[in-house]
Amino acid sequence: MTQHNFVVRNPDFAQDIARSFGRQGALKTVSAVLLDIQPGLCRLSLPISESVSQHHGYVHGGIVGMIGDVAGGYAAMSLFEPGREILTIEYKINFLAPALGVTLQATGKVVRPGRSIAVTTVELVAFDAARAGRTIALLQQTCMPG
Amino acid sequence: MTQHNFVVRNPDFAQDIARSFGRQGALKTVSAVLLDIQPGLCRLSLPISESVSQHHGYVHGGIVGMIGDVAGGYAAMSLFEPGREILTIEYKINFLAPALGVTLQATGKVVRPGRSIAVTTVELVAFDAARAGRTIALLQQTCMPG
Amino acid sequence: MTQHNFVVRNPDFAQDIARSFGRQGALKTVSAVLLDIQPGLCRLSLPISESVSQHHGYVHGGIVGMIGDVAGGYAAMSLFEPGREILTIEYKINFLAPALGVTLQATGKVVRPGRSIAVTTVELVAFDAARAGRTIALLQQTCMPG
Amino acid sequence: MTQHNFVVRNPDFAQDIARSFGRQGALKTVSAVLLDIQPGLCRLSLPISESVSQHHGYVHGGIVGMIGDVAGGYAAMSLFEPGREILTIEYKINFLAPALGVTLQATGKVVRPGRSIAVTTVELVAFDAARAGRTIALLQQTCMPG
Repeated sequence: MTQHNFVVRNPDFAQDIARSFGRQGALKTVSAVLLDIQPGLCRLSLPISESVSQHHGYVHGGIVGMIGDVAGGYAAMSLFEPGREILTIEYKINFLAPALGVTLQATGKVVRPGRSIAVTTVELVAFDAARAGRTIALLQQTCMPG
Repeated sequence: MTQHNFVVRNPDFAQDIARSFGRQGALKTVSAVLLDIQPGLCRLSLPISESVSQHHGYVHGGIVGMIGDVAGGYAAMSLFEPGREILTIEYKINFLAPALGVTLQATGKVVRPGRSIAVTTVELVAFDAARAGRTIALLQQTCMPG
Repeated sequence: MTQHNFVVRNPDFAQDIARSFGRQGALKTVSAVLLDIQPGLCRLSLPISESVSQHHGYVHGGIVGMIGDVAGGYAAMSLFEPGREILTIEYKINFLAPALGVTLQATGKVVRPGRSIAVTTVELVAFDAARAGRTIALLQQTCMPG
Repeated sequence: MTQHNFVVRNPDFAQDIARSFGRQGALKTVSAVLLDIQPGLCRLSLPISESVSQHHGYVHGGIVGMIGDVAGGYAAMSLFEPGREILTIEYKINFLAPALGVTLQATGKVVRPGRSIAVTTVELVAFDAARAGRTIALLQQTCMPG
């Protein structure tokens, strides 16, 4: 993959993203936590509990998709100009293994920074009690400044 | 689109799907309701509230994706053999307009029934207080019996 | 699906699309033909021959994707302003059945017209010698004026 | 990403893939070349010429998708049992930059090996005359043994 030297246009991107994150009711509902935000990268964490599960006790695929969508979107937003939010245009997610464990972590990375269209990939990893991780989904996303 | 005369292999598909739906914690968390289930079709409804919203008051894209994923999956499950659940292999969703209103409705339809691989499309429509609807997202999904 | 009354911004869209089509070397290579162009709709046809086949004699999935991409893109371009070409941002295609027969037809329809972002769906149908058709693939695409 | 120690079930996978590649008319039509095949990895190359171009002289997006689909598919096939071919279930491709240059290279990697369902990601890089490469597309694909 081509290495990027990302241009940061908003010096306050980290605070702006933390503030935006805090205003999202859906993220509170599922108890998601913002772990890390850097230029072109965002990492989130979700405690795995019954309230986000499906019938087998795995995290519901739709919740996995939501967490992945958010991680990719904030990775993109870190490179936007000040005052812009994210609009997700579309995403596609493949489920590779059941999301079983104690924590689900989503790491979004920008693969195409852009003023109008940004593209990200997101890897979703489930960690068990012994902190062993397994990639359980991959997401590819397109978004734009809103 | 080629018309399908769907083969129903599980005479109790409607009850089995209602039971499966009731066991999904994530669906309870967002207060989703099963509206209709027929061979090759499933319709769900979600009340739009702050707990499923993002910062602008729209339904969060990830929740839209979750509801769409579920509608497509149960549409596919209606044609599976008895005793099989759904595994989503992947889905892709395009967001067409903000999910604003009082209710979000997802209608999943099977476009490729299959014993091993099923493909569905799902249309997501937001209804306002006057019951006027607007298509806000389209999802294309692959799933299999689990 | 919400019905659209499409706004045509380029009165010469049909000629402009025919001219654009004729300049594409890749479409000549596979002998694709433009069948129909209307506001928000484009239909293409491809003769099925060994030069577009894979090892089983079916049309190669990549060629199916190419024809679908083109049909969706020109459907979108019919609603663009004069002088704009299409840039495909992304597409996703599901293969439903082998592309066997004498002709492959792709029908692209705009589901979200937009000045900046357009979304289309494309249905690909293979016709046999008796002119019976079978849907063999579905594509969902995002594009923009270029 | 979780590291895989891929299990090779077909000791003749490299020859079988080379033979399969040679039988594909569509790949001959575009002059694609098989560069490298290893367990879980396939790399292809395509000379950029007018016959695969669109109106701006870039490689047509559909051809980019075809080459990507093939690279991902053979990466998956390297881990299948003897005698199995690839069926692509679906793929999704994002176009990141115009495919300009002298050669297009596609590198497919398996991210989920599986007897029934395999998932791959493919990176497409365009090289100019000075052999400088630029990632121009990313593809995420699901396939199965056929």
